[in-house]
Amino acid sequence: MKALVYHGPNNRAYEEKHKPKIQESTDAIVKITKTTICGTDLHIMKGDVPTVTDGRTLGHEGVGIIDEVGEGVSNFKKGDPVLISCITACGKCDNCKKQMYSHCENGGWILGNTIDGTQAEYVRIPHADTSLYHIPEGADEEALVMLSDILPTGFEVGVLNGKVKPGDVVAIVGAGPIGLAALLTAQFYSPAEIIMVDLDDNRLEVSKEFGATKTVNSSHGKAIEKIMKLTEKKGVDVSIEAVGVPATFDICQEIVKAGGHIANVGVHGKSVELKLEKLWVQNITMTTGLVDTYTIPMLMKTVGSGKLEPEQLITHHFKLSEIMEAYDTFGNASKEKALKVILENE
Amino acid sequence: MKALVYHGPNNRAYEEKHKPKIQESTDAIVKITKTTICGTDLHIMKGDVPTVTDGRTLGHEGVGIIDEVGEGVSNFKKGDPVLISCITACGKCDNCKKQMYSHCENGGWILGNTIDGTQAEYVRIPHADTSLYHIPEGADEEALVMLSDILPTGFEVGVLNGKVKPGDVVAIVGAGPIGLAALLTAQFYSPAEIIMVDLDDNRLEVSKEFGATKTVNSSHGKAIEKIMKLTEKKGVDVSIEAVGVPATFDICQEIVKAGGHIANVGVHGKSVELKLEKLWVQNITMTTGLVDTYTIPMLMKTVGSGKLEPEQLITHHFKLSEIMEAYDTFGNASKEKALKVILENE
Amino acid sequence: MKALVYHGPNNRAYEEKHKPKIQESTDAIVKITKTTICGTDLHIMKGDVPTVTDGRTLGHEGVGIIDEVGEGVSNFKKGDPVLISCITACGKCDNCKKQMYSHCENGGWILGNTIDGTQAEYVRIPHADTSLYHIPEGADEEALVMLSDILPTGFEVGVLNGKVKPGDVVAIVGAGPIGLAALLTAQFYSPAEIIMVDLDDNRLEVSKEFGATKTVNSSHGKAIEKIMKLTEKKGVDVSIEAVGVPATFDICQEIVKAGGHIANVGVHGKSVELKLEKLWVQNITMTTGLVDTYTIPMLMKTVGSGKLEPEQLITHHFKLSEIMEAYDTFGNASKEKALKVILENE
Amino acid sequence: MKALVYHGPNNRAYEEKHKPKIQESTDAIVKITKTTICGTDLHIMKGDVPTVTDGRTLGHEGVGIIDEVGEGVSNFKKGDPVLISCITACGKCDNCKKQMYSHCENGGWILGNTIDGTQAEYVRIPHADTSLYHIPEGADEEALVMLSDILPTGFEVGVLNGKVKPGDVVAIVGAGPIGLAALLTAQFYSPAEIIMVDLDDNRLEVSKEFGATKTVNSSHGKAIEKIMKLTEKKGVDVSIEAVGVPATFDICQEIVKAGGHIANVGVHGKSVELKLEKLWVQNITMTTGLVDTYTIPMLMKTVGSGKLEPEQLITHHFKLSEIMEAYDTFGNASKEKALKVILENE
Repeated sequence: MKALVYHGPNNRAYEEKHKPKIQESTDAIVKITKTTICGTDLHIMKGDVPTVTDGRTLGHEGVGIIDEVGEGVSNFKKGDPVLISCITACGKCDNCKKQMYSHCENGGWILGNTIDGTQAEYVRIPHADTSLYHIPEGADEEALVMLSDILPTGFEVGVLNGKVKPGDVVAIVGAGPIGLAALLTAQFYSPAEIIMVDLDDNRLEVSKEFGATKTVNSSHGKAIEKIMKLTEKKGVDVSIEAVGVPATFDICQEIVKAGGHIANVGVHGKSVELKLEKLWVQNITMTTGLVDTYTIPMLMKTVGSGKLEPEQLITHHFKLSEIMEAYDTFGNASKEKALKVILENE
Repeated sequence: MKALVYHGPNNRAYEEKHKPKIQESTDAIVKITKTTICGTDLHIMKGDVPTVTDGRTLGHEGVGIIDEVGEGVSNFKKGDPVLISCITACGKCDNCKKQMYSHCENGGWILGNTIDGTQAEYVRIPHADTSLYHIPEGADEEALVMLSDILPTGFEVGVLNGKVKPGDVVAIVGAGPIGLAALLTAQFYSPAEIIMVDLDDNRLEVSKEFGATKTVNSSHGKAIEKIMKLTEKKGVDVSIEAVGVPATFDICQEIVKAGGHIANVGVHGKSVELKLEKLWVQNITMTTGLVDTYTIPMLMKTVGSGKLEPEQLITHHFKLSEIMEAYDTFGNASKEKALKVILENE
Repeated sequence: MKALVYHGPNNRAYEEKHKPKIQESTDAIVKITKTTICGTDLHIMKGDVPTVTDGRTLGHEGVGIIDEVGEGVSNFKKGDPVLISCITACGKCDNCKKQMYSHCENGGWILGNTIDGTQAEYVRIPHADTSLYHIPEGADEEALVMLSDILPTGFEVGVLNGKVKPGDVVAIVGAGPIGLAALLTAQFYSPAEIIMVDLDDNRLEVSKEFGATKTVNSSHGKAIEKIMKLTEKKGVDVSIEAVGVPATFDICQEIVKAGGHIANVGVHGKSVELKLEKLWVQNITMTTGLVDTYTIPMLMKTVGSGKLEPEQLITHHFKLSEIMEAYDTFGNASKEKALKVILENE
Repeated sequence: MKALVYHGPNNRAYEEKHKPKIQESTDAIVKITKTTICGTDLHIMKGDVPTVTDGRTLGHEGVGIIDEVGEGVSNFKKGDPVLISCITACGKCDNCKKQMYSHCENGGWILGNTIDGTQAEYVRIPHADTSLYHIPEGADEEALVMLSDILPTGFEVGVLNGKVKPGDVVAIVGAGPIGLAALLTAQFYSPAEIIMVDLDDNRLEVSKEFGATKTVNSSHGKAIEKIMKLTEKKGVDVSIEAVGVPATFDICQEIVKAGGHIANVGVHGKSVELKLEKLWVQNITMTTGLVDTYTIPMLMKTVGSGKLEPEQLITHHFKLSEIMEAYDTFGNASKEKALKVILENE
């Protein structure tokens, strides 16, 4: 079969590889029908993720068809259409029992990281019963690719951790795919205002189409002042960090009101300065988290009922065989006005 | 009457002052029977709290007897024994309605700060109906002085924000009065372990008497390693910061396990380095807060039932007229083995 | 002034009465601009509410203009446009401090019950600071009349107690004004399905316009079977009882799935049979409650942001002087296709 | 091997049976070391549980040693000492993922019900990885038998569902083993008062030793009056029903205060009269539930730290071969002053 393989920093190839085989009785082999590329894959390509080694097939998102299951798999059988969670969960360890699948002692984020991933014609999914989800009949499979990672991430780590409530004023700093996923799912809770903050006017424009009530371009370093002005100096109930650098975290901590929430979603490469000399008195709650994907079933229901339209996040389509080019497009997201790209395995 | 008055940094006097009068219909005048000194008062004396100006009577804790009430006061009458909350709450603003009294738009921490406080023979309490509490008949009034500030602070900002649960492993960094208040009230929730961390062996000894299961002397900078060892490298479910400097905050963020809580209680004068490059993936919750004292009624019940013995925190007794000396003793807490001092107005 | 006065069962008059005066320093006198009639007023007229005695002005909903305030009132001044909560809250008692205003020891539901109410040109509001709400500039005052009682009731007692979540299947039994208020506010949380159940096809039709995804006419006693069929025998996550008779409660307990919620909103005149022999094993939560109206500020924000359009509930308009006729119309709600009527004091 | 086998109502035998074998790859065979008898087993013996058929080995509690595991079992290996949960959980279905193991679609309460149970020398445990728990080295295995069912039941369904808080007044109606389990675990949360209610003076005496602050003998039908008197007419914050008949449920609903909780733990054979005409206005929460045993790990920690001493519940010891006699003793619990009996497999 063919797969997108990492060969060290800035070196990838779409090349022939052995089709994966069942290794444990709880494994399933899934024939990928659609997959996508994540911002994390770009980080990997830069060499930022040392757990990923030469020869690794990348990718941790996708939908497909069950090709084969191990003897211990009971929820799925050959031919079932499935959604792949980016998080592999054994369902048996202490963390899995608490639905903190991200810290599964026998899994977690391993796909396209420590084991071969989904940017291939076939993928082996360990602990299939608790790491795959049935796709309901009639569902738009392509849209569901957004439920592998990005929508649960925005929802769980941004919206739920941030405790968005009806009537709230919410700011989301970062209008990339993750920030937009938070924007789409924050609307489940009917906040009064959602202020999107980004450097890119195109993304702010998209934000408005996706439901943002206000936007702030932070290019000129005045984001804090602008947001305070938009909120009549009150600040926001919830600020969601969806970039992962000190400057954006700083915006979040400066605009949150007393009693408010800061939900960090961004992947950070270095420490930030936490202004406790100001915040110690502010009764704020700050959260971090890797996605657990425990809300995939809930999100599927909201898709089924039309409350969530994940396809809004998809801007480009490629064949799986065009994945080298797809990486280039996604890697120039701003210029290409790319959010998420779909790769189809014909 | 006599009062302890601030006259600029390192300059205090116990001197004659006018007895306070009712200014608003919702005021009460309380004759102080017992009061105490807070670590915050020492900060004020150093000049660290710019809102406190020359001539201010200090103190925000105490019990007393109602001497007079304004027409609008309905919960209290002359002669009632009362506990004074360190937080003055109007009960009418948006924050008060949410029990976030610390951010009362017409009060908050004002006693001994922006209005005259409790280290005096009499004190004026604004918004008396929502800032005072009846002392139940037969209660140990002296012990209840600990409910004005220190016990609700340790409980609300440390234990409740930290979501201590039965079976948890808790670390409290700082065994001063606030840390010990957290230690006493954490036991309401039956954690399996409470590890106390401090530089002072005497305070660690006291911690053990108060219920700590383990202690760590952090003098030699190995606190993190020691705690990780004590927890078999798992870390703690809840870490409570009760000092207010970067080094102690750092201990808290290094020892918390995935899914755990960091509850900041300490008063910080400068920023800390938040290691988001490590924590972003750890599903942690960090909280800050000034005390709201909304748990005073709950704490009174636990005192009444013998689950909490606030008098454990009292190490020294003085007459109110000896308050200059009491400040010296409390200011040398380590040497004097002082926790809380009681000042009695005869 | 003129007022709608109760003179015993089935005997009401719109008659001359003394304009109310300030009695306590915390009172306000409000000149009513718009008021309405509640189902509870009809119960009173039948003689079902023994606390209401001859000579009582009815009504507990409305908006108006502050005419006069007592000395102790600080949040409001003459001329302020205000929304009147149906619940009078002193803000000082133990229950008020917990926001359980419905059980205020010095108030609760007293308007148009134990003191004169809002169906008059003027009304005295005790504890004005904590029982009135400012109307934001530019707001549709008429729509806000729906926030005095009906919308907070449907929201707090139905939706919030029932813990409606994104993706849930919700059934609301009873499509009268309260059931419809629950229907409108349940949508704040993006449930997948809302099934409305009623005997009246017109109200079911209205329900669809208001966002119900499915409707069930329960006239022929097959509501349970129909709902189970609509839910593929799974039952519902949340059932909201909005009628108040044993038969409708029974529907709610029969259709709730394991782990689900039954939120009782209906006013019951007799006991119901709780099928614990079936439910003991079902991990269900059942709640009851009188409205606390603590969500009025939140609801105002959702109105301001367009997420809630309370005017949808208004079907008829009268002058206050036509209130006798308005009672007739509202009393024949089904025939008149009446939901809420607005009475305007010119 | 030998097992206690049900042969229809009032007909049991301790007889020879085939030793169980692995049937599915996720099964384990456990050699029982200690087991016990549950009140439910007495119900079964009366013929009250129709799912139990002739030939069934009874019992759903116990500790033992892993004798054999299927290929799909990864958490356990031969020789491991284990605690058996009374609830068998597949860990893969929607309910298991929400920790509602009691409603596992492939398990639930099946041991000693629809499959052979633990009152035998060996037992087959399906879904072993998620239905067994490691016993920590040095633990008192006998005490842990109480964690199979009774302590998690009292804790989860009584204490946690009832939301017992520090300072609360709690009433537990029924001082049998389940009520006592609720009594022991309620103390994790430091309530101010725990009032135990029972017909049996001996059990009330035991309750006092176990931490009850007050007791009420309900033999003469005055329980409600007595409890209201003990609470100065205020009623209780939490009432826990631990019997399962209409009269005891009625006590619970009559004594709960506004805003309080009724937690039903009792197994009910018929409907109860729910006094909604009184309760609709009382803002109460009522819960039901079969135990999920998700707190077994938490309870093990509290045992390890000495906060819980399950052995307090054990009054009698027998050899497994004496189980016929043990049933007689347990069946005459009041006369024999029996709480829980331990059966040892030598």
